[in-house]
Amino acid sequence: MSAPRSHRHPVVFIGAGPGAVDLVTVRGAKALAAAEVVLADALIDDGFRDLAPNARWVDVGKRGFCKTSTDQATIDALLVRYALEGHRVVRLKGGDPSIFGRLEEELEALAAANIPSEVIPGVTAASAAAAATQRPLTRRGRGRSVALVTAMTEARHLQAERSADSAVFYMAGRQLANLARKLADAGWRDDTPVLVVSRAGAADEIASDHTVATLPAAAMLHAGRPAVVFTGVAALPVSRPSAPVILSEAKNLVVSPP
Amino acid sequence: MSAPRSHRHPVVFIGAGPGAVDLVTVRGAKALAAAEVVLADALIDDGFRDLAPNARWVDVGKRGFCKTSTDQATIDALLVRYALEGHRVVRLKGGDPSIFGRLEEELEALAAANIPSEVIPGVTAASAAAAATQRPLTRRGRGRSVALVTAMTEARHLQAERSADSAVFYMAGRQLANLARKLADAGWRDDTPVLVVSRAGAADEIASDHTVATLPAAAMLHAGRPAVVFTGVAALPVSRPSAPVILSEAKNLVVSPP
Repeated sequence: MSAPRSHRHPVVFIGAGPGAVDLVTVRGAKALAAAEVVLADALIDDGFRDLAPNARWVDVGKRGFCKTSTDQATIDALLVRYALEGHRVVRLKGGDPSIFGRLEEELEALAAANIPSEVIPGVTAASAAAAATQRPLTRRGRGRSVALVTAMTEARHLQAERSADSAVFYMAGRQLANLARKLADAGWRDDTPVLVVSRAGAADEIASDHTVATLPAAAMLHAGRPAVVFTGVAALPVSRPSAPVILSEAKNLVVSPP
Repeated sequence: MSAPRSHRHPVVFIGAGPGAVDLVTVRGAKALAAAEVVLADALIDDGFRDLAPNARWVDVGKRGFCKTSTDQATIDALLVRYALEGHRVVRLKGGDPSIFGRLEEELEALAAANIPSEVIPGVTAASAAAAATQRPLTRRGRGRSVALVTAMTEARHLQAERSADSAVFYMAGRQLANLARKLADAGWRDDTPVLVVSRAGAADEIASDHTVATLPAAAMLHAGRPAVVFTGVAALPVSRPSAPVILSEAKNLVVSPP
């Protein structure tokens, strides 16, 4: 390791968003442009490299609990090492770093080494899937809460309890048949609508409608693709009213010319 | 109304993010640059106008249930009218349009008029507050779900049931004392940590730590400011371990030169 430079830059955590490069925030894109080292998750699109032309790119992908991926302690160590060497370090995570991003461990490692950090939020997978399929996560009057839940835990235990008007299960791609059974066990009715969206916002996105009873059929369709699963009100398509909106006169408006 | 042009552009819904202009997505910024009419929520920073230099800017702010704000039917009618006139219409909403954005009504109004629409997701307030305060919404092993809940409904009923490891209450700014009582009534322990963040990500952001018992004291501090409230695991500060991370050798890495 080279001697620490006098000035320590904060390590900047950036939410890459759901996949497509142009769904990163403007602030995130600027931080990438200034990066000297980027530690990137698996599933980060190669196009992000173009946003960080001066950076050494380090793949530290963790894909589920695959044994060949970089372990958390190694990622922590790399963050600390590059930061202590005085580099401008970016940690690029899929989605939003604060939602199922294992951000806590990395913030703790940096704090223990007296290295400052900054977090730039991103678009989380649930928002991206809702936008792409036009299924809002909340609906006035009948969808006033949404729970974001990880379908997978280290012990491979599936959380599926009914806890809000809608639920979005993350990291569910490899467990759709399991999830169907757990949803039924947790008291979701057989005919509860379920929407599965894989690679939300990407050119090869797939979205499919099911119910709790028919969800196992989605496993083949979305095999090997990162997926989120909506259940409850958020899974419902937006209705198409038969009567068009009445073009009432505008009131209380401030209209300024361009 | 002028005669409809032959080509109808889709109305583009854009999530502005939590407030700061550079927290919009790159895709959102590009759509704003091409906009001819922008219908903007209240609380949208004036800086966004610079991103849409060629657009007529229409304020259709709805702030809580204030009587002077534009009603939903008028917003629906304006969207349809400008789209039928052939303009490139952007509907700019705070945060993410799919989360407490009343997106459904506006999508329905456009569908009824055969006008196509597109939704560009944004950073929701919970993600922004989590990033700014470095309080991740999920934590490995102990914070595996987070519920996003609106604190206010039309009937002024507060939802406060305990439904996940953590909860984030939106639109809670004017009801902090109420929320404290409702949290206690719903079975959250008096010593449950509560974090209040107002104007998350803006220069004048305020974040304050409380418990369910002491939350009413936050009302004065955050008066008149849009706020989100974290309860449960997500409200806890990230700990600062006493032992620094061990700089183990990196393994399983692909390191490419810049």
